[in-house]
Amino acid sequence: MAITIDDIRAAAARVEPYIRRTPVMTCSSIDQAVGARFFFKCENFQKVGAFKARGAANAVFSLTDLEAERGVATHSSGNHAQALALAARDRGVAAHIVMPDNAPLVKVSAVKGYGGQVVFCEPTLSAREETLARVVEQTGAAFVHPYNDERVIAGQATAAMELIRETPDLDFIVAPVGGGGLLSGTALAAAHLAPAVKVIGAEPEGAPDAHRSFKSGKLEPSQNPRTIADGLLTSLGSITFPIIMERVHDILTVSEKNIVAAMKLTWERAKIVIEPSAAVPLGAAIQRPEFFKGKRVGIILSGGNVDLDKLPWI
Amino acid sequence: MAITIDDIRAAAARVEPYIRRTPVMTCSSIDQAVGARFFFKCENFQKVGAFKARGAANAVFSLTDLEAERGVATHSSGNHAQALALAARDRGVAAHIVMPDNAPLVKVSAVKGYGGQVVFCEPTLSAREETLARVVEQTGAAFVHPYNDERVIAGQATAAMELIRETPDLDFIVAPVGGGGLLSGTALAAAHLAPAVKVIGAEPEGAPDAHRSFKSGKLEPSQNPRTIADGLLTSLGSITFPIIMERVHDILTVSEKNIVAAMKLTWERAKIVIEPSAAVPLGAAIQRPEFFKGKRVGIILSGGNVDLDKLPWI
Repeated sequence: MAITIDDIRAAAARVEPYIRRTPVMTCSSIDQAVGARFFFKCENFQKVGAFKARGAANAVFSLTDLEAERGVATHSSGNHAQALALAARDRGVAAHIVMPDNAPLVKVSAVKGYGGQVVFCEPTLSAREETLARVVEQTGAAFVHPYNDERVIAGQATAAMELIRETPDLDFIVAPVGGGGLLSGTALAAAHLAPAVKVIGAEPEGAPDAHRSFKSGKLEPSQNPRTIADGLLTSLGSITFPIIMERVHDILTVSEKNIVAAMKLTWERAKIVIEPSAAVPLGAAIQRPEFFKGKRVGIILSGGNVDLDKLPWI
Repeated sequence: MAITIDDIRAAAARVEPYIRRTPVMTCSSIDQAVGARFFFKCENFQKVGAFKARGAANAVFSLTDLEAERGVATHSSGNHAQALALAARDRGVAAHIVMPDNAPLVKVSAVKGYGGQVVFCEPTLSAREETLARVVEQTGAAFVHPYNDERVIAGQATAAMELIRETPDLDFIVAPVGGGGLLSGTALAAAHLAPAVKVIGAEPEGAPDAHRSFKSGKLEPSQNPRTIADGLLTSLGSITFPIIMERVHDILTVSEKNIVAAMKLTWERAKIVIEPSAAVPLGAAIQRPEFFKGKRVGIILSGGNVDLDKLPWI
């Protein structure tokens, strides 16, 4: 079941009351430093501090009343957990969030702060899946996967849709890629609304499954991924991968050094706080200047949730 | 010679091609944490990273061609130096910036980066004034004081003018106060455009000359001011003080602890980078919650120039 432009338009209308229409910012000082013209779609200013608010809202508000009243559930210790808790609260239903019992307290508190019900499990993949299955069975809650879900993908696509409508004549749009929800949504939006724009995925060198899968043509999940961009540790899913294969122009990998450099450059010059995962696209432009030289480059700044006490350059 | 609303309107038209119209941001999470409704005028996104671009541009573009061709001059090692260098470059004339020879290299480089000509002097008040006088005598450059200058004050007033036009029904506007250029301009704009709005100055407890002068009714310059808000070490001037006495509702002082708390809160929740001086108004609201409780509070976020390697909470 392919995601159509009508699905994305419907998602935009559905989530509109529950998300922020984020600004597109420019920064001539970054443009000069890197040698291209950048248009930053500021999802760091989005509710819960990340684009994840879009996909979660679209999934939750796509449910029928009968489905919704049983609540929603997911496993996540990241931005998706907070986003789903918020969307569920906006709809007035329960959100069951399965989190490993070693998750940072600040993330647990954030989910609870949005009214989410945290269910702890051991920090293994199998414990996480078993716990989620049990929660779903007991409650009848609707599972909302962090990225491998068409409603989520259509929701994430609305960020690129807004960027494209506001910013004519882009040559590229670059989005970070972890599980691929944002990248596949971005590619779908561009394909329908601005087919001349090349969509690029930017991925840490330490978690290069999307790059490898894209080159080989078959899903190759990451083995022991390691990167400061902790939102991008996940691997592509069965739904996101085919969209990316079909619609994405290229996937560039970025060193840890260039991720940190891009993060610091953005804080210093654009005066905005972005998380490491959000810095990967600009990191790609720093690493491959010839690729973007003189071009008009849209960048999805995916989020701004950072531990201010532990900055990677200090 | 009083500054009129026509002067402020003329300043707005004059500087418009050379500055950014900065956004007014809101952040429900900060509102909840502090207990008021805040409207942040983001001069951290202004050119040179601070509101100083406004006053400098108005001063430089107020000069006749004959005056301008001899250049401009000032003494400053802060944001005004960069702002004047940029405005002079925009007008195509020289900017002579007198700086102490112990000024941080990064500030010297920033001024040179905007094409300013740096003239070093010993780090004393008398050396600074003598050097400036010599430069002015030798070049015929027009001296643009960082704050005690009506053209500069009218320029700074344009930030509050934009805020007021975009944000109806404010109860307060709070601006940081050092030399008083921003605060006096803000008070003038509000008096003419929104006379029901109470304008408040926010000042570090460690540099409390404006508070003392406001209470005593006579200029009492700071003795050995010390604060992390290094843009606010200066004392009120002969032009800014009477405007503040006449137009400002109150001046609140803020502890270093609350300045840092406000700075970190803004980074963490609003996802924007502000310098310590810009955090003083929100710090005042943290320190005096009963004063602002439930009110609609405009805040001028004065700038975002921070050394990211030395953050006060780490």
